[in-house]
Amino acid sequence: MDYKHIFSQAIERLHKEGRYRVFIDILRNKGHFPNARCFAGHNGPTPITVWCSNDYLSMGQNPDVISAMEEALNNVGAGSGGTRNISGTTHYHSELEAELAEWHGKEAALTFTSGFVSNEATLSTIAKVLPGCVIFSDELNHASMIAGIRNSRCEKRIYRHNDLAHLEELLAAENPDLPKLIAFESVYSMEGDIAPIAAICDLADKYNAITYLDEVHAVGMYGPRGAGIADREGLADRLTIIEGTLAKAIGVMGGYIAADQLIVDVIRSYAPGFIFSTSLAPVLAAGALASIRHLKISSKEREAQQKHAALLKQMFKDAGLPVMATTTHIVPLFVGDAVKTKRISDILLNEYGAYVQPINFPTVPRGTERLRFTPGPTHNEAMLRELTDSLVAIWHRLDMRFAA
Amino acid sequence: MDYKHIFSQAIERLHKEGRYRVFIDILRNKGHFPNARCFAGHNGPTPITVWCSNDYLSMGQNPDVISAMEEALNNVGAGSGGTRNISGTTHYHSELEAELAEWHGKEAALTFTSGFVSNEATLSTIAKVLPGCVIFSDELNHASMIAGIRNSRCEKRIYRHNDLAHLEELLAAENPDLPKLIAFESVYSMEGDIAPIAAICDLADKYNAITYLDEVHAVGMYGPRGAGIADREGLADRLTIIEGTLAKAIGVMGGYIAADQLIVDVIRSYAPGFIFSTSLAPVLAAGALASIRHLKISSKEREAQQKHAALLKQMFKDAGLPVMATTTHIVPLFVGDAVKTKRISDILLNEYGAYVQPINFPTVPRGTERLRFTPGPTHNEAMLRELTDSLVAIWHRLDMRFAA
Ligand SMILES: Cc1ncc(COP(=O)(O)O)c(C=O)c1O
Ligand SMILES: Cc1ncc(COP(=O)(O)O)c(C=O)c1O
Repeated sequence: MDYKHIFSQAIERLHKEGRYRVFIDILRNKGHFPNARCFAGHNGPTPITVWCSNDYLSMGQNPDVISAMEEALNNVGAGSGGTRNISGTTHYHSELEAELAEWHGKEAALTFTSGFVSNEATLSTIAKVLPGCVIFSDELNHASMIAGIRNSRCEKRIYRHNDLAHLEELLAAENPDLPKLIAFESVYSMEGDIAPIAAICDLADKYNAITYLDEVHAVGMYGPRGAGIADREGLADRLTIIEGTLAKAIGVMGGYIAADQLIVDVIRSYAPGFIFSTSLAPVLAAGALASIRHLKISSKEREAQQKHAALLKQMFKDAGLPVMATTTHIVPLFVGDAVKTKRISDILLNEYGAYVQPINFPTVPRGTERLRFTPGPTHNEAMLRELTDSLVAIWHRLDMRFAA
Repeated sequence: MDYKHIFSQAIERLHKEGRYRVFIDILRNKGHFPNARCFAGHNGPTPITVWCSNDYLSMGQNPDVISAMEEALNNVGAGSGGTRNISGTTHYHSELEAELAEWHGKEAALTFTSGFVSNEATLSTIAKVLPGCVIFSDELNHASMIAGIRNSRCEKRIYRHNDLAHLEELLAAENPDLPKLIAFESVYSMEGDIAPIAAICDLADKYNAITYLDEVHAVGMYGPRGAGIADREGLADRLTIIEGTLAKAIGVMGGYIAADQLIVDVIRSYAPGFIFSTSLAPVLAAGALASIRHLKISSKEREAQQKHAALLKQMFKDAGLPVMATTTHIVPLFVGDAVKTKRISDILLNEYGAYVQPINFPTVPRGTERLRFTPGPTHNEAMLRELTDSLVAIWHRLDMRFAA
C-alpha cells in the first residue's frame, strides 16, 4: 500500500485542472479596511485593497465591536474552557442567544462554533429525530447544508435552483404521512439571487412540511432591523428554523439557529456537533452581541454597501465586463474557466494591488468559474473606478470577450 | 404529521432518564480563576469555584495570551471575514500553523474552527481519499472522531478500549492490500487513562496501516515541551497525523492537525468542513500562538496541575470516596446513576458553591455516570480539602457507599 502515491495523485489532479488553491496571507489594517497588507511575496508585506471579504459591512472593524471584545477579554479571559454543558455556558452566550431570538422574532436561539457547524449539526439532528423524514433541498445549497443532509442519512430530493414547480412536483410525489423538511437559502452567495421564500412557505403549508432557511449571507444585510430577507419580507414566523452566521456581515465568528423553544431544546440535547465541542469563546459572543445591537438600529452600513454594490455593477456593465445579473449585494463577474480566472486574479493582485480570489470548483460548478466582488461601505467611488479600469485593461490584454 | 408531538417526546425521554441537561450560566473572574460568578438563581450572580473546566492550566487567564489577543484585535479587528481560501488566511494563521508543526515535530499543520471539526473533517476526508480504506477505531473514541469515521462511509472495525490483542485480531483479518487507518486518543478524558501508543504504532507498521492520534486532552499537558503524550514518549514521528485542540490546555478555541506537508495539502484541498467555513478569528489564532509559545518553555503550570490532581486523588481515596483509578490529570468520581449524579452536583453548587457538572449518557455509557474533577494550577490545597469535606458530607446525607 503506497499511501504517499495515492495522496500525491489527489493533489496532482488539482494542479492538472488548474484549481490547486494557494492561500493568500494577509493582514488587514484595522480602521482602514479594505486596505490590508499582503505577505505573498518575499519582499515583506505589500499594500493591497481587499475585494472579496465577506465582512460585508466592515463590522469586524467597528469600534463598539472591538471594545466589547476587549472588555470581555478583560472580564473573563480567552476561551470558555468547556462544552456548553460542562462549564462552557457563560452569561455572554445567554445574552447573545436572547438577542438573536428577539432579532429573528423567534422564541429561542442556539449558538454554534460556526455557521458550517450550525447547518451540519441542526439538519442532521432534526431529520434524525423525525422518523422517516424526507428532505427537499435546493440544488445550489451550501456544502454545510449538504453535509447535514447527508449525515442525517434520510431520504433526500434535490429540486432545481429556486424552481417552485419542481419542488411541488417532488413534494406531491411523497407519502403525505411522512415528515418533510424543505432546506434552502435566502441569498445564494455565489449567484447573488434570492429564494421565493413566501411561495416556498406556501408549499410547506400545503404539504405539511417544516422549513429550514439559511440566511448566512443576509443577516445584518437586509430588513429594517437587518435580520435578513425573512425580516425584510415579514416572513420570519412562517419559517420553522432560521440559521445564520456571526462571521460575515456580523464581522466576528460563530453560527446559530433561531426557532421555537422546543426545537432549540431538541438540537441542544441531541446534536453531537453542538454537545461535544468547546463553546464559542466569550470574546466572540461579546463581539457578535455588540455588532447585532449596532446593526439593529443602524442602517447606514447597509445603505452604503448597497450603494457601492449598485455602482460597481453599473460601472462593470458600462465597461462591457460580463457582470452576472444579481438582485443582491454580490457582484460576480463571469469567466467560465479555472485557469483564466486564476490568471486574472494573479494579475490583479501582483500588478494592481487588488485582491479578489478566483472562485472555482467545488465552490461553483465547473465551467462557471468567476470572480466575486463584495464592495463594502468603506470602498469609495475612486476605488470602484480604479478596479473597473484595471479589469478592462486585463480583459484587453488577455483578449477576453466584452459584453455587447 | 404532528411535529410538535415528536419533538416533545424526544425531550420527554431525557427527563424520564434523568439526563435532561441544564446549562449553568457562569462568568469567570479573570485573574482569579477558578473563582467565578454563577447566574443560575434569581438573586443575581453568586460566587462559585469551578471544578470541571478543561482550561486545565488556566491559560485562558494568562497575561501573555490576553495581551496577544488585545494586540491582534487592535491590529486587524474581530473576524477574518472569509474562508481560508477567500481572504480568510492571515499572517496569524500562517504563524500559528508553523508553530504547531514545529511543536509536534511535523512538516506542516492546519487549523480548524474547533477540535470537533478537525476530527470530523480530517477523518472523513483522508479515508475517502484512500480507496477501500478500513478504519480501526477504539470503542471509547470521542464523538467527533466517530462522526468523521461515519461520514467517511468507509468500512470500520471497533476494537475494545486500548486492547492490543483485539486490535491485532481485527487487523490480521483484513485484506493486506487494502489501505488501513487506526484512529485513537492518547488521553481518554472521561476515563483518565492513556493508550499504548508505541505498541499501536508497532501494529500499524506490521499491518501497513496509517495512524491518527487525538491528543486533545494531552497537548499542553505532557512532555518536556508540552506537546502531548507522543512528545513525552518520543513517538511523534511514528504517527501519521496528530490532532489537537486550542480550546482546552491552550485556553482559547479552535482545532488542528499536524502531519506531512502532503497530507495537510490533501485535507486543506478536499475537506468540506475546512474549505467551506470562515477561518478561525485572528484574535483566537494570536491567543493560541502566545499560549503555545509560553507552554513550550514553561513547565510550572503543568507541574502545579499534576501536583493538585495527585493530591485530590489522595484526599478522595483517604476519605473513602470512590475515585476511579487514573494515570492522568483527570479525577473522576464514580456514581453510576444519572439521577444521583445530578443530585450531588446540584447540592454541591447550591449549598457549597462548588461547580462540577454531572457526566451522563451519551458522554459516558449508561450506568457509569460520574463526577469529573479537573483541579488546575490555581486550585489551592485549602480548596481541595474543602471540596473533599463537602463530598463526604453529601455521601453521608444521601446514604451512598464509601470504598473499603
Ligand atoms: C450559505 C452558507 N451557509 C453556511 C456557511 C458557513 O458559515 P461559517 O463561515 O460561519 O462556517 C457559508 C459560508 O461560509 C455559506 O456561504
Ligand atoms: C477527545 C476529544 N476530541 C475532540 C474534542 C473536540 O474539541 P473541541 O472542544 O475543540 O471541539 C473533544 C472535546 O471537546 C475531546 O474530548
